[in-house]
Amino acid sequence: MSTTPKRLKILVLHGPNLNLLGRREPHIYGTTTLEQIDSRIEALARELDVDVECFQSNYEGALLDRLHAAIDEFDGCILNPAALTQHGVGLHDCIKAVPFPVVEVHLSNIHAREEWRRHSIVGQAAKASVQGFGWRSYTAAFRALVEQLRDA
Amino acid sequence: MSTTPKRLKILVLHGPNLNLLGRREPHIYGTTTLEQIDSRIEALARELDVDVECFQSNYEGALLDRLHAAIDEFDGCILNPAALTQHGVGLHDCIKAVPFPVVEVHLSNIHAREEWRRHSIVGQAAKASVQGFGWRSYTAAFRALVEQLRDA
Amino acid sequence: MSTTPKRLKILVLHGPNLNLLGRREPHIYGTTTLEQIDSRIEALARELDVDVECFQSNYEGALLDRLHAAIDEFDGCILNPAALTQHGVGLHDCIKAVPFPVVEVHLSNIHAREEWRRHSIVGQAAKASVQGFGWRSYTAAFRALVEQLRDA
Amino acid sequence: MSTTPKRLKILVLHGPNLNLLGRREPHIYGTTTLEQIDSRIEALARELDVDVECFQSNYEGALLDRLHAAIDEFDGCILNPAALTQHGVGLHDCIKAVPFPVVEVHLSNIHAREEWRRHSIVGQAAKASVQGFGWRSYTAAFRALVEQLRDA
Amino acid sequence: MSTTPKRLKILVLHGPNLNLLGRREPHIYGTTTLEQIDSRIEALARELDVDVECFQSNYEGALLDRLHAAIDEFDGCILNPAALTQHGVGLHDCIKAVPFPVVEVHLSNIHAREEWRRHSIVGQAAKASVQGFGWRSYTAAFRALVEQLRDA
Amino acid sequence: MSTTPKRLKILVLHGPNLNLLGRREPHIYGTTTLEQIDSRIEALARELDVDVECFQSNYEGALLDRLHAAIDEFDGCILNPAALTQHGVGLHDCIKAVPFPVVEVHLSNIHAREEWRRHSIVGQAAKASVQGFGWRSYTAAFRALVEQLRDA
Amino acid sequence: MSTTPKRLKILVLHGPNLNLLGRREPHIYGTTTLEQIDSRIEALARELDVDVECFQSNYEGALLDRLHAAIDEFDGCILNPAALTQHGVGLHDCIKAVPFPVVEVHLSNIHAREEWRRHSIVGQAAKASVQGFGWRSYTAAFRALVEQLRDA
Amino acid sequence: MSTTPKRLKILVLHGPNLNLLGRREPHIYGTTTLEQIDSRIEALARELDVDVECFQSNYEGALLDRLHAAIDEFDGCILNPAALTQHGVGLHDCIKAVPFPVVEVHLSNIHAREEWRRHSIVGQAAKASVQGFGWRSYTAAFRALVEQLRDA
Amino acid sequence: MSTTPKRLKILVLHGPNLNLLGRREPHIYGTTTLEQIDSRIEALARELDVDVECFQSNYEGALLDRLHAAIDEFDGCILNPAALTQHGVGLHDCIKAVPFPVVEVHLSNIHAREEWRRHSIVGQAAKASVQGFGWRSYTAAFRALVEQLRDA
Amino acid sequence: MSTTPKRLKILVLHGPNLNLLGRREPHIYGTTTLEQIDSRIEALARELDVDVECFQSNYEGALLDRLHAAIDEFDGCILNPAALTQHGVGLHDCIKAVPFPVVEVHLSNIHAREEWRRHSIVGQAAKASVQGFGWRSYTAAFRALVEQLRDA
Amino acid sequence: MSTTPKRLKILVLHGPNLNLLGRREPHIYGTTTLEQIDSRIEALARELDVDVECFQSNYEGALLDRLHAAIDEFDGCILNPAALTQHGVGLHDCIKAVPFPVVEVHLSNIHAREEWRRHSIVGQAAKASVQGFGWRSYTAAFRALVEQLRDA
Amino acid sequence: MSTTPKRLKILVLHGPNLNLLGRREPHIYGTTTLEQIDSRIEALARELDVDVECFQSNYEGALLDRLHAAIDEFDGCILNPAALTQHGVGLHDCIKAVPFPVVEVHLSNIHAREEWRRHSIVGQAAKASVQGFGWRSYTAAFRALVEQLRDA
Repeated sequence: MSTTPKRLKILVLHGPNLNLLGRREPHIYGTTTLEQIDSRIEALARELDVDVECFQSNYEGALLDRLHAAIDEFDGCILNPAALTQHGVGLHDCIKAVPFPVVEVHLSNIHAREEWRRHSIVGQAAKASVQGFGWRSYTAAFRALVEQLRDA
Repeated sequence: MSTTPKRLKILVLHGPNLNLLGRREPHIYGTTTLEQIDSRIEALARELDVDVECFQSNYEGALLDRLHAAIDEFDGCILNPAALTQHGVGLHDCIKAVPFPVVEVHLSNIHAREEWRRHSIVGQAAKASVQGFGWRSYTAAFRALVEQLRDA
Repeated sequence: MSTTPKRLKILVLHGPNLNLLGRREPHIYGTTTLEQIDSRIEALARELDVDVECFQSNYEGALLDRLHAAIDEFDGCILNPAALTQHGVGLHDCIKAVPFPVVEVHLSNIHAREEWRRHSIVGQAAKASVQGFGWRSYTAAFRALVEQLRDA
Repeated sequence: MSTTPKRLKILVLHGPNLNLLGRREPHIYGTTTLEQIDSRIEALARELDVDVECFQSNYEGALLDRLHAAIDEFDGCILNPAALTQHGVGLHDCIKAVPFPVVEVHLSNIHAREEWRRHSIVGQAAKASVQGFGWRSYTAAFRALVEQLRDA
Repeated sequence: MSTTPKRLKILVLHGPNLNLLGRREPHIYGTTTLEQIDSRIEALARELDVDVECFQSNYEGALLDRLHAAIDEFDGCILNPAALTQHGVGLHDCIKAVPFPVVEVHLSNIHAREEWRRHSIVGQAAKASVQGFGWRSYTAAFRALVEQLRDA
Repeated sequence: MSTTPKRLKILVLHGPNLNLLGRREPHIYGTTTLEQIDSRIEALARELDVDVECFQSNYEGALLDRLHAAIDEFDGCILNPAALTQHGVGLHDCIKAVPFPVVEVHLSNIHAREEWRRHSIVGQAAKASVQGFGWRSYTAAFRALVEQLRDA
Repeated sequence: MSTTPKRLKILVLHGPNLNLLGRREPHIYGTTTLEQIDSRIEALARELDVDVECFQSNYEGALLDRLHAAIDEFDGCILNPAALTQHGVGLHDCIKAVPFPVVEVHLSNIHAREEWRRHSIVGQAAKASVQGFGWRSYTAAFRALVEQLRDA
Repeated sequence: MSTTPKRLKILVLHGPNLNLLGRREPHIYGTTTLEQIDSRIEALARELDVDVECFQSNYEGALLDRLHAAIDEFDGCILNPAALTQHGVGLHDCIKAVPFPVVEVHLSNIHAREEWRRHSIVGQAAKASVQGFGWRSYTAAFRALVEQLRDA
Repeated sequence: MSTTPKRLKILVLHGPNLNLLGRREPHIYGTTTLEQIDSRIEALARELDVDVECFQSNYEGALLDRLHAAIDEFDGCILNPAALTQHGVGLHDCIKAVPFPVVEVHLSNIHAREEWRRHSIVGQAAKASVQGFGWRSYTAAFRALVEQLRDA
Repeated sequence: MSTTPKRLKILVLHGPNLNLLGRREPHIYGTTTLEQIDSRIEALARELDVDVECFQSNYEGALLDRLHAAIDEFDGCILNPAALTQHGVGLHDCIKAVPFPVVEVHLSNIHAREEWRRHSIVGQAAKASVQGFGWRSYTAAFRALVEQLRDA
Repeated sequence: MSTTPKRLKILVLHGPNLNLLGRREPHIYGTTTLEQIDSRIEALARELDVDVECFQSNYEGALLDRLHAAIDEFDGCILNPAALTQHGVGLHDCIKAVPFPVVEVHLSNIHAREEWRRHSIVGQAAKASVQGFGWRSYTAAFRALVEQLRDA
Repeated sequence: MSTTPKRLKILVLHGPNLNLLGRREPHIYGTTTLEQIDSRIEALARELDVDVECFQSNYEGALLDRLHAAIDEFDGCILNPAALTQHGVGLHDCIKAVPFPVVEVHLSNIHAREEWRRHSIVGQAAKASVQGFGWRSYTAAFRALVEQLRDA
C-alpha cells in the first residue's frame, strides 16, 4: 500500500495516576516522568515520520471521549490503561468499536505482580501488547505499530 | 556502561509446534515460516551489531537444556513458549535461575483467545513480554531487549 | 390513583460508548443512531402523554449527578448502563437510593454474549429489565414503565 | 416484507408451578392468576391482530413436545421458563433448533433474587428477555416481538 | 389447638428411581422395597391416627402436579426428592408455594456420599430434613412432623 | 460364556430433542434423521444377530420408566442423553442401578463445544462413551458393546 | 440380636453456645432451654428403657475428651455440633474413630440459612442427621437411633 | 517528632453517592447529612488543632485529581470510597503512590452486608480502616490518624 | 437516654497468641505488650468514666464462656479475635446472641495481609470494626463504642 | 468419493506409560499388552484394507515430532494421550494444525475416575472420542474413523 | 557452632485425637500407640544426646499455651497438627512467632487422602514437613531437625 | 522378613533444573550442588549397606523411561519432581504403576511458597514425602524408606 499520500497519525493515551510517573514508586515504575516519556515518543515519531498526540487523564470518561473524537483522525492508538486494565469495560467496548488498531502497553510486567493484576479486560479487545520494558514499552509498541500499519 | 569490550549475544527460543509456522492456521499465525522469522531476527541482529542464535524444539527438556547451556554464554533471551505458556513450570523455574533477562513473545494476542490461554506461568517469571504483532513480536522484543541491555 | 393532576416525567440515561451507536458493530447493535433512538422514545412519550428527557455520558460520575438531580423531578428512569453493567456499583447504590423505579435496558441479549457480560450489578438493584430487542428494548421498557406507574 | 398474506401466530409457554400464580406468594409474583394473564395476552393479540395460543405444563418434556409441534405453525414464542430457567438444557437446545425467535419472560427480576437464580441457561439461547414487570412482562414482550416480526 | 375436628392428612412423595428400592444397590439403600416402606408408613399413620397417601413418580412434573392438587387437602408432606435433590428447582419453588410444611427425607446420608450430592436445592426450601436412617428416615420424619403439626 | 442359548437384546435410548435430528442445525448434528439412525442401528443389529429396540422421549421420566422396564429384558443399553447429559441425576442413578452396561453416545464431540457441555453427570455412571462421529457414534458404540458382551 | 443382657446407653453432646438456648434469638432457635431439651430426652430415654447422658461444652477439646472417654461405655451418640459444624475436623476424625454410630442434629434447617452454614464437615463422618424440627430434632434422632441399634 | 513547627493538615474524601447521605436509606446509613458530618469533622479538627479539608465527588477521576494535588500539602487522608470500594484500582494505586497515610472509612459494616461488598481493593492499599459506627467512623478515624501522626 | 443511673461497663477480649504481643514480630504488631494495651484502655476508661474488664485466652471456648457470663453484666464488648477471625463460627454465633454491641478490632490492617486473612466470619456478626492503628485500634474502638452507647 | 486410487493410512499414537499396559493395574486397564493391542489394530487394518502405523512414547515432544512428520503421509490419527490428556497443550495445538482428523481414545472411562481426569484439553481439539471399552476403544475408533474417511 | 555448652531440647506436640492412636483405624494410622511413639522418640533423643518433651492435647488452646511456655526453653519443635492442619490459624500464627523452627509431621500422606485434607495452613508457617511414614515420620523429622540445628 | 539374601537397591530421581542446584538462587535452594547431594546420598547408602543409583533429567519422558526400566531392579525410589510437581500426570500414573514405594522430596517447603506450588499431583500418588530440610530432605527420606523396607 502506498504510504505517501497519507501521513500516519498515532494517538497515545495514558490512564489514571500516570501523571505521577517518576515521582513515586521508582522501584516499580522507574524514574522517568510522563513528560520525558512523551518527549521520547515524539522524538521517535519524528524519526519514523509520523504524527503523534499524547493525552493523559484520570477519568475513564475522558479517555473514551478522546478515543471517540479520534475515530476519523487517527490510524492507530497506544494505550496504557493503568488502573483501568482490570475493569475498564468502557475501554474494552470502545477499542472494539474504533476502526484502527489499539496496542496495550504497561511499564511493568503485570503477570509478575499481584494475582488480580494479571486479568486484563482491555487486553481482550486490543490487537497487541507490550509490557515490562519501562518507558521502552511505549517506544517498542509505537515502532511495531507504525511498521505494521505501513505493511498492511 | 561501556559496551565495546563485550559484544552482546542473544538466544532466541521457539517452543512446541512453532516449526509448523506458515504452514498451518494462517488466519491466526500468519504465513511467515519459522525460517523467515529467524532470518529477520538475524538481519536485525546484524543491524544492531549483536550475535544471535535461534533454536526450536518440541521438547520442554530440550529448551531447558539449551537455557542451562547458555548460562555463561548469553546476555539475554527471547522466548516464545507456545504450548508451554500455561503449564511450563520448568521454564518458569529456569527463567528465575538464569542470570540474564528473558522476554516472553507470542505471535497472537493470547488475551484475545480462549480463556485458558490467558494464564501464563512463564510470564510470571519473565522480565517483559510482547504479543500480537505476528513475527514482529520477535523483532520488537529483540530490539527493546538489546537497547535495555546497552542502557544498563 | 388519579393520574390527571400529575403528568409523568421519565429520565432516559445512556451509558458509555452509546453515542457511537449506529456507527460501529452494526451486527451486534444495529444501524440505528442514538439520535434516532431518542426520537423514537420522544415520539412514544408524546403518544403516551408523558414528559421525557434523554442524556448520554461516558462518565459514571455524570450519570450519577444526573440521577441525583432528578430525585425530585422524575417519576421513573430507563437506564442502559452499557459498559457499567458489570462493575457499576455507583449506579447500583444510586438506584437503590432514588425514590422512583429504574428499568435496565440493553440492545443485545447480554446472556448470549461473553460469559463475563452476563453478570449485572446494576440489574440487582433495578426494578425490571428489557434486553435483546435492539432499539425496541427502550420503547418496550418505556411503555411498560409508564403503564405500571399509572396503575400504581 | 408484506404482512397481509400471513397472519402472525405466537405461542405463549408457561413453565412449572405457574398454574399456581395469584394463589401463592403474592409479595413476589402479584395477585394476578394465570388465566387473567392469558386473557390479557389474548386481548393484546386481538388488538395487534395476531393469533395466540397459551400453554402451561409442569413437565419440561411437555413444553418441548409443544415447541416441536409448533415448528411449522408459529412465528414466534414467548416463554416463561420458571423453574427451568437455570438447568433447562432441553429448552436451551430446543430454542436453538426452532426457526422462530423465542423471548424469555419472568414476572420478577431474577437478578434481584437469590444468587443461583441469576444464571439463565435458557436466556443464553433466547433472542430477548423481559423481566420484573409482573404480568406486564408478558404483554411488553408480546408487543415487542410482534413489532419486530412485522419489521423484519 | 384442638385436633379433634380436623384429622391430619399427610402426603408422602417418592422421587425418581425409588420404585427400584430393595432391588438394587442394597449396600447403599438397604433391602427394603418401596411397598414395604409404604406399609410401614401406613402402619405408623394408623398408630398416630392420621391419614396418609403415598405416591411415587419418575417425572418431576408428576410430583409437582400431585403437590398442586394437595394444596387444600393435606396438612404436611414427606418428600424424598432422590435424583431431584440437586437441581429440582421446580420442587423448591413448589415447596415455597404450598401452605403446609414439607420435610425432606433421604435413605442414606448424602453428606457422606459424592461431593455433588451434598448440595440440596430442595433442602433450601424444606422445613426440616431426616437422612441416613434407611427406611426409618421416613418414619422418624413422619412422626416428628405429625407431633409438630399437633403442637402448633 | 456360551452365547448360543441367549440372543442378546440391546435397548437404544434417545433423549430430548433428538426427534428433531436432521431437520435442524445440520452444521452440528448432520442431516440424518432419527428414523434413519434407527434403521442403521437395526441393520447392524441384524448383521450382528442381536435384537434391538429404539425409544425416544423428551421426558426424563419416560426414559427412566423405559430403563426400569428393561431391567430383566435387556443385556445392554446405548444412551444418548442429549440435554440430560449435564444434570440428569435420575439417569445417573438409574444407570448405576440397572444390571447391564450402559454406553453414553453423542453425535458431536461435547468437549469441543460450550464449556458447560463438557461436564457429564451421566458419563460418571456409564461404562463407556463414544462421541463426535455423528450417527456413527451409535453404530460404533453398538458394535463394541455387543462384542464386549459376547466376550464376557 | 438379643437386647436383654445389654441395656443401651446413649451420649448426647451439645456444642458451643447451646447453653444459651431459649434465651436468645427465639425466632431461629425457639424458646425451649437446654435444660428443657435434656429433660425431654431423658423422659424419652426412660420411655424407651435406655440410659442417657447429656453434656454441653463451648470447647471442641472438651467434646473430644468426652467422646474418647465414651468409647467403651456408650452404644451411640447424638451430636449437635453447632458452631463446629463447618470446621470441626477434630469431631469429624473422632466420629470416624469411635466404634458406635453418631447422629448429627440441628435445631434449624441449616440448608435454609446462610450459604456457608450448609457445608458440614461433621456430617461427612456422621451416620445420619436430623434437622429443622427445633428440640424435636433431638428426640426424633434419639428414637430412630435406638430403634436401629435394637434392630442390628 | 516536634509538632509545633508544622500544623497537621488532613484531607477528607467522600466517594460516589455520599452527597445523598441523610436523605436516603436511613435504616442503613442513618439520618445525618454529609454537611453535618463535615461540620462534626471540622469541629473535631478545631478541638485537635489541625487543619482539614472535605471534598465529595461522584467521579473517581476527580478524587484522584484531588489526591494528586494534595501530595505536598497534606499529612494524611480519610477516605470513604463508597461505591469505589470493590473495583477502585485507581484509588488503590494512588494510595500506594502518595507519601501520607490513608485511612478507609465506611458508615456501615461492609462485612455484614452483601457478599460482594466485603472485598475491598482500596483496603488492600490503605493503612487502617474504621467501619460500622455511622458518622462516628469518620471522627474515630480522624482522631486516631492525628494521634498517630503526632506520635511518629 | 439518661446515663446517670447506669455506669457503662465494657468487656475487652483478646484472642489467641495476643499474650505474645510486643515480644514477637514487632514489624507487624509493634512493640507494645498486652499489659501496656490493657493499661491504656483502662486509662481511657477512667477518662470516659466507664468500667472495663480485659481478658485474654488462647481457647475459643474460654472466650465464649466469658461472653456468656457477661450477658447481663456488660453494655458492650471490644473483641480482637486474632486467629479466630476466619473460622470462629462460635464467636460469630455468640456475637449474634448477646444483647450488647461487639466491635471487632485488629492491630494490623488484615486487608493488606495474606489473601486468606481478609475473610472475617466474626466481622459478619460484629456491629463495627477498627483495624490498622496498632494498639490505637483498641482505644479508637473503645471511645467510639462508648460515645455511641451514650447517644442511644 | 472414490477410494480406489488412494489407500488410506492411519497413525496410531500411544502416550506416556502405555508401554506398561497389561503389566500393571489390570483392574483399571485390563491384561492386554500394548503389543497385543497393536496386533489387533493391525489385523483390523488388514481387514479394512488400510495401512496403519503404531508409535508409543513417554515424551510429548516425540509424539509431536511424529505428528509433524505425518502431516503429508497420513489420512487420520488415533491418539491415546494418556497422562497428557489434561495438560497436553502441545498436542491440542498440533491436532488443530494437522490437516487430518484425530480421534481421542481412552481404555477406561475417564469421567468415572478422579475429578481432575475428566478435563481433557486434547479432547477440545479432537474430532471424536471413544473411551471405556478397554482395548476395544482403539478398534471401535479405528473402524469408525476409516468408515467416515471413506464416506467423506 | 559449638554444641557442647548447650544441650538441645526439643518439644514434640501431638494434636487432637492422636491419643487414640493404635486403637482405631489401623488401616490408616497403623497399630502403634501414642505411648509407643513417644518411647521411640525418647530412645532416639537419647541416641542423639538431646532432651525431649512430648505433649498431647485435644485443645488448640492447650497446644498454644505449651508453645508459648516453650519460647525460652526449647530449640525446636516437632508438631503433628492432626485435625488442626486445615484451619489451625492459631498454630500458624504461633509458629511464626516462636524463635525456633517447627517441623510439621503426619502419619499418613495427606495429599493422598480427601481433597480438603491437602490444604495445610500450619504447613505454610512450618519450616519443613515429613509425612506418610507412619510413626517413622516423627523420628525422621526429629533426626533431621537435630542435625540441622547442630549444623547451623 | 529376612534381608540377607536380598540387598536393597534404591533409585534417586532428580527432576528438571535440579542440575543447576548450588549455582542459582541459594536463598531458596542452598549452596550445595547436585553432585554433593548425590555424594551424601551415596555415603548414607554405604552406611546403611544398600545400593543406590542417581539420575537427573530435564525431560519428564526420560524420568518415566528410567522408572519403567527400574521396575524389576529396584526396591524403592526417592523422587524430587521439581517443576513436574504440579502437572506431572505422567509421573503420577507411573508411581501408581510401579511395584515399589516412591517418596516425594523437596528441598524447600512448597507450602510456604507461591499458592500454585502447593498443589502436588505427584504427591497424590506417592507413599510419603519430606520437604523443607534442604539437601537433608533427601537423606531423611532415604533413611526412612530403607528402614521401612527392612521392616516390612
